[in-house]
Amino acid sequence: MTVPPITVADFCEKLGAAPPTGLNNKALTGIMTLERAGEQHVSFVMKEKHLAAAQQSKAAVILAFEKLNFNHPRVVRVRDLMGAVLTAMEYFHPESPSTGVVHDSAIIAKDVKLGTNVQVDAQAIIESGAEIGGNTIIGAGVFIGARTRIGSGCIIAPRVTILHECHVGSRVRIHSGAVIGADGFRYEVARGRLMKIPQVGSVVIGDDVEIGANTTIDRAFLDETRIGNRTKIDNLVHIAHNVIVGTDCLIVAQTGAAGSVKIGNGVIIAGQVGIADHIEIGDRSRIGGKSGVTGDIPPGSDLIGNPAIAPRDYARFTHFYKNISSYMKRMRVIDREESRDDE
Amino acid sequence: MTVPPITVADFCEKLGAAPPTGLNNKALTGIMTLERAGEQHVSFVMKEKHLAAAQQSKAAVILAFEKLNFNHPRVVRVRDLMGAVLTAMEYFHPESPSTGVVHDSAIIAKDVKLGTNVQVDAQAIIESGAEIGGNTIIGAGVFIGARTRIGSGCIIAPRVTILHECHVGSRVRIHSGAVIGADGFRYEVARGRLMKIPQVGSVVIGDDVEIGANTTIDRAFLDETRIGNRTKIDNLVHIAHNVIVGTDCLIVAQTGAAGSVKIGNGVIIAGQVGIADHIEIGDRSRIGGKSGVTGDIPPGSDLIGNPAIAPRDYARFTHFYKNISSYMKRMRVIDREESRDDE
Amino acid sequence: MTVPPITVADFCEKLGAAPPTGLNNKALTGIMTLERAGEQHVSFVMKEKHLAAAQQSKAAVILAFEKLNFNHPRVVRVRDLMGAVLTAMEYFHPESPSTGVVHDSAIIAKDVKLGTNVQVDAQAIIESGAEIGGNTIIGAGVFIGARTRIGSGCIIAPRVTILHECHVGSRVRIHSGAVIGADGFRYEVARGRLMKIPQVGSVVIGDDVEIGANTTIDRAFLDETRIGNRTKIDNLVHIAHNVIVGTDCLIVAQTGAAGSVKIGNGVIIAGQVGIADHIEIGDRSRIGGKSGVTGDIPPGSDLIGNPAIAPRDYARFTHFYKNISSYMKRMRVIDREESRDDE
Repeated sequence: MTVPPITVADFCEKLGAAPPTGLNNKALTGIMTLERAGEQHVSFVMKEKHLAAAQQSKAAVILAFEKLNFNHPRVVRVRDLMGAVLTAMEYFHPESPSTGVVHDSAIIAKDVKLGTNVQVDAQAIIESGAEIGGNTIIGAGVFIGARTRIGSGCIIAPRVTILHECHVGSRVRIHSGAVIGADGFRYEVARGRLMKIPQVGSVVIGDDVEIGANTTIDRAFLDETRIGNRTKIDNLVHIAHNVIVGTDCLIVAQTGAAGSVKIGNGVIIAGQVGIADHIEIGDRSRIGGKSGVTGDIPPGSDLIGNPAIAPRDYARFTHFYKNISSYMKRMRVIDREESRDDE
Repeated sequence: MTVPPITVADFCEKLGAAPPTGLNNKALTGIMTLERAGEQHVSFVMKEKHLAAAQQSKAAVILAFEKLNFNHPRVVRVRDLMGAVLTAMEYFHPESPSTGVVHDSAIIAKDVKLGTNVQVDAQAIIESGAEIGGNTIIGAGVFIGARTRIGSGCIIAPRVTILHECHVGSRVRIHSGAVIGADGFRYEVARGRLMKIPQVGSVVIGDDVEIGANTTIDRAFLDETRIGNRTKIDNLVHIAHNVIVGTDCLIVAQTGAAGSVKIGNGVIIAGQVGIADHIEIGDRSRIGGKSGVTGDIPPGSDLIGNPAIAPRDYARFTHFYKNISSYMKRMRVIDREESRDDE
Repeated sequence: MTVPPITVADFCEKLGAAPPTGLNNKALTGIMTLERAGEQHVSFVMKEKHLAAAQQSKAAVILAFEKLNFNHPRVVRVRDLMGAVLTAMEYFHPESPSTGVVHDSAIIAKDVKLGTNVQVDAQAIIESGAEIGGNTIIGAGVFIGARTRIGSGCIIAPRVTILHECHVGSRVRIHSGAVIGADGFRYEVARGRLMKIPQVGSVVIGDDVEIGANTTIDRAFLDETRIGNRTKIDNLVHIAHNVIVGTDCLIVAQTGAAGSVKIGNGVIIAGQVGIADHIEIGDRSRIGGKSGVTGDIPPGSDLIGNPAIAPRDYARFTHFYKNISSYMKRMRVIDREESRDDE
């Protein structure tokens, strides 16, 4: 979508910031990184280490935190730098709203309830009894199973699979290849052999959630796998059956939460973390990358490693590990002590 | 699918169990967890720690192991608790059988052989020379490549991709987003530079196998990547080219087996495990979560860690690791000893 | 595709090798492993440990490195064994070229530019403004977003998703389920709360790249996520926004590179590796399986472990770790020493 240029004065007015001297009428056409910005671009300097790049940038104006030590004739100083960047993003890259058009090739069961202005792209399939809220965009080739309900203002990207009887809130984004509602993985010995335990529950996703590409969220055994409001999940994450994720969590790529894990509110989990089944992670905890969580974690914990321990202890361990050669020498000394003892 | 209610007496007869006094004619309409069960539900108590929830449950009847210390007016005691739960699941949540309907929008090559009563959902594609056994369900948007054969009674979920010349047994479930038969990943120096080695073998999947969402199983270089009968594979697992997985294995989410790995029968591999190429894992071995397997493993092994070691040693290591601060102190003591020695 | 048989003499002429005595006119119909080869197959012996299998093989001729200690009446000795195997692969398993046929069910926007002889399979979707180079094959059910450009001679396997405004080079293979150009995962505190930072950049993939099944490569914030020429990426790999991967790299399955990582040229990264955000990995570095990379790595480094260290140190650490019981004993001795000290 192409938007009209905006003058520096008008743009700065949106930010509530003072425009640089003499640039009021200059036209801005986009936002770009310092290195790639052209003479009609807004850019921004986030960190001190980018000051050199900022000095060399061709950008028409450069957004900077008001207290940054950065003298530049074209700087625009703001208190909320990220908010200002977002304002620029919203102006130059507005979200495409739903067109409200249902493509001819979409296959929608007769009893599906579509809200007002729902966009359904080519080859999407929506099965019987499903409900889609107003202004939601169902991307090309999306599959929505029977009786699944999706709220309003969602963006379901091309080739997402949401199986039957799931519930997705409003303003949710789900990225391509994600699979919501596949069977949980549970086998038990019954009748003398290993049997699949059918998974007939559902997945319930709150409002304002984002789910990454090729992530999988399995349906519960009997009740619900749940993702809380405003939680953001990255790509290739595995959320097993009966997991409950709270609100306002960030879960980074390739992390896996095994069956019945409970994750509190405001938890941040870095990439490639594994969480063993039935573990509870308290509110506002933070788990470092590649950690293995094998025990319950109280609220506000900060942990890393496999198994996950306090960062201070982990730093000590990695000091030992990185300097293993010198520690090995010390430990060999002990051998000598021992043998002397034995004499 | 809605099923008719069943009386407590009839339900208990199915289980070969004694109905609770006075409840013979009570109607049961479903099975649910202790917390969510209503007055017409069957529920069940699996573990002692759920006894309090069981006491408070509204469930009409509560299944329990015959020796569980649980006094309750509505308990139904059984020897095979999981078997009884399965009986309830089978009654209240029967599998939907194939409808035998081929959707108009499915694209099926003329020479494809469909068995009796095969269901092919919207937009599925079945290419030339493929064969599908009786009562198999091919979900919406599934792709089945040329000359691939699939057995009878399979459930291939929406958006599964099974590429050309693969062979899937009978009663196999493959979940959405799984990719069977993509090229193996092999590059070798030839003609003076790194060359792709074409992968022209196939994938052969046995009977009663389950394959999770977004899992990938690559085709072999020349012969076959194989998954044995009754093996169950979770989501986002990577099975590389020429891997041979035995029968009755469980492979949990996000695990990866590199090229030419051989996994025996009855092996259990937890989540996020990595197995280096050409490794052999003996029958009935168990590998703990997040382990790295870099050497052959004899049958019956129980291993965990990276590299994978015996659980007793791993427990000692994690004791050391978790108490690194106190061990570091001890090791610093040695420094003092050493320097005293040197005096 | 079935190819005509070739005589041993003609095949050996292709290799520039001497045919075994008396076999000139024997017809060859394929290439197979030593164990499975029949009397009309070419086979090959790669390693000394396969010599016994080679002796027992029924293969018509057996390719072997010229210096291999292998006496056999049907051996064909070559200097470039892998090159000879490739010659056999190319003869017996030639790539199917583009048919140039566009399937009726494909949905292609009117303004899409298709080069000469482009094959578009069933249900592929190509959106407005996209461009596809000559002889490229767009598999069944592939989604190509608006204004995305794809070079010539590419093979885009069934069910690949390439979102809008990405750029794929020539002779690129992308395997099923891969998602190119989903939003990067970035949230920042702005306007007093955690906000999604829109991702409006693109993904640029060079020439001769291969991308594995269900791998995800996210679009950049403002500029480009880049994959260099001849780089090969395995299955289920995660490449975050703004990552730059150089040329001639190999990235094995289930590895993840977080935002803004820079990977040099000729880098080899084994499976299940995690690379923290903003890290730089120098040219020709090699990272072992399951490693965690949390600091910059100079060119030519060889590292393994989490955090990644030199292989020699890692070997020492794993020696300690595997022998933890005996080291624990030594460390307990120190306790005794200490207490004696204290007396």
